[in-house]
Amino acid sequence: MSILVVGSVALDSVETPFGVRERVLGGSATYFATSASFFTDVNLVGVVGEDFPQEHTDFLTSRNIDLTGLSKVPGETFHWKGRYGYDLNEAQTLETHLNVFASFKPVIPEQYADAEYLILANIDPELQMEVLNQVKKPKVVACDTMNFWISSKPEALKKVISRVDFFIINEGEARQLSGEANLVRAARKILDMGVKNLIVKRGEYGVLMFNGATVFAAPAFPLEEVFDPTGAGDTFAGGFMGYLANTGNLTDEGVRQAVVFGSVMASFNVEAFSLDRLKTLSYPEIEARYRSFKRMTHFEGVSEL
Amino acid sequence: MSILVVGSVALDSVETPFGVRERVLGGSATYFATSASFFTDVNLVGVVGEDFPQEHTDFLTSRNIDLTGLSKVPGETFHWKGRYGYDLNEAQTLETHLNVFASFKPVIPEQYADAEYLILANIDPELQMEVLNQVKKPKVVACDTMNFWISSKPEALKKVISRVDFFIINEGEARQLSGEANLVRAARKILDMGVKNLIVKRGEYGVLMFNGATVFAAPAFPLEEVFDPTGAGDTFAGGFMGYLANTGNLTDEGVRQAVVFGSVMASFNVEAFSLDRLKTLSYPEIEARYRSFKRMTHFEGVSEL
Repeated sequence: MSILVVGSVALDSVETPFGVRERVLGGSATYFATSASFFTDVNLVGVVGEDFPQEHTDFLTSRNIDLTGLSKVPGETFHWKGRYGYDLNEAQTLETHLNVFASFKPVIPEQYADAEYLILANIDPELQMEVLNQVKKPKVVACDTMNFWISSKPEALKKVISRVDFFIINEGEARQLSGEANLVRAARKILDMGVKNLIVKRGEYGVLMFNGATVFAAPAFPLEEVFDPTGAGDTFAGGFMGYLANTGNLTDEGVRQAVVFGSVMASFNVEAFSLDRLKTLSYPEIEARYRSFKRMTHFEGVSEL
Repeated sequence: MSILVVGSVALDSVETPFGVRERVLGGSATYFATSASFFTDVNLVGVVGEDFPQEHTDFLTSRNIDLTGLSKVPGETFHWKGRYGYDLNEAQTLETHLNVFASFKPVIPEQYADAEYLILANIDPELQMEVLNQVKKPKVVACDTMNFWISSKPEALKKVISRVDFFIINEGEARQLSGEANLVRAARKILDMGVKNLIVKRGEYGVLMFNGATVFAAPAFPLEEVFDPTGAGDTFAGGFMGYLANTGNLTDEGVRQAVVFGSVMASFNVEAFSLDRLKTLSYPEIEARYRSFKRMTHFEGVSEL
């Protein structure tokens, strides 16, 4: 089953302790779509300016990502500039130029209105709601957000998340939205807002998933080289939704496997700047790392003492 | 098989966002021994002052901990005073009064010299070495340390850790000792110092174990109530070594189970001040939480796509 993603396509300028890259391919929808494309077909809705390089369009097309919904309009492409210190868990935003994204009104092409798998990447929650209203009867909806929307449009955000199946945010955002320092209590409060499944990303510490009945904990893959964490969360979501859409297995077991595939994809993405690692990645490498995850976390049940 | 633990027995004054306790039972050997006592017999070597309350001695004895090696000498018991903020991962030390611990010279009673399982809790690495030299032929030795010894006696510490089987430290200490921000590289450097197995404690994020060939990642149990993290690391080590000593299973599988039992014990300990939770804990509760850990981390292997 194909996935519909609505989010940003951007040019990023990134500085980490390991180097600098200027105006490289970025954006939440870009990372998500590329990651998900290893598992299923992806349809992307977004906007770029006239400066968006053809090579990036060619790359996305080469990954079988349908760009019918990507409009090119007069002006410049969304541009984000950020920096990471040795603590690679948190980016410092230096500049945000929304450019053509400032007036983005997502219009879902008629042929996507029947989408069964939908990801609302990090955009204004009011726009996320407009997208939700344009998709007739989605089977699985996931959604991301950021600290800016939690503080500026909490009510609009709460309306959106009460209608989605998987709300995927980071640890700091979970604490901010709930007003609880303890993550278990934070999760309970967010589930009480009507969220069916909450996935909390903890950077190098992995992921926790809560659904009110069970908790699933997956570590992050310990990496020797983390060059650029940009897009790790979107790449996680892409692997997660891509695997779900491919298998259609929405049982607790299937969703847990999807979380691990998401973690696998994120672990590759941070190994190089921009989408460079995803550009050279092959499916056998993904499966091999999934098996490493399995070995890394395995332990036997209780034996009799 | 019984375990020999050498470390501190203390009276702690602790302040957390959830309350204050004055001069309650504490110390690395105390937490370790109590935790390990759920799995096997424990012999404790340490020192207290004349102010050490009889009720604490009675409690330790009630846990079948052999106190032949605990000397009571003129002066006051080691006293630590600390505070935790809402970030319960790090303590702020307010006062340290070594008192009788300042002149502590561990003497291993003759009947303990054949100990097969030995834990060198956090004390001066020169004393740790003296203990090592008094125990004839230990089968398994584990060792802890702290930032103070890493900076003040790095060479003495390196001599000790090259002779132990399990070096158990926290994430910040691993970075400090190795001079590497990246934890995988930090672990490799520490293994290169002659450490056979490195266990890195990450507080609420769980544990990573490295042995040069494999990595094992275990999450921490997500808790709604964390009242007092004091002693969590020693309680972890107690469950870990206790399980190993009980089963004698030193295979990779056995060691991984021991790590999870250690995590289980630590998760109970932080639920109340001092050793209060361990005082009411029962073995069936330990097994039940082990099973919860298993369910929480389980996911299926790769299915065909």
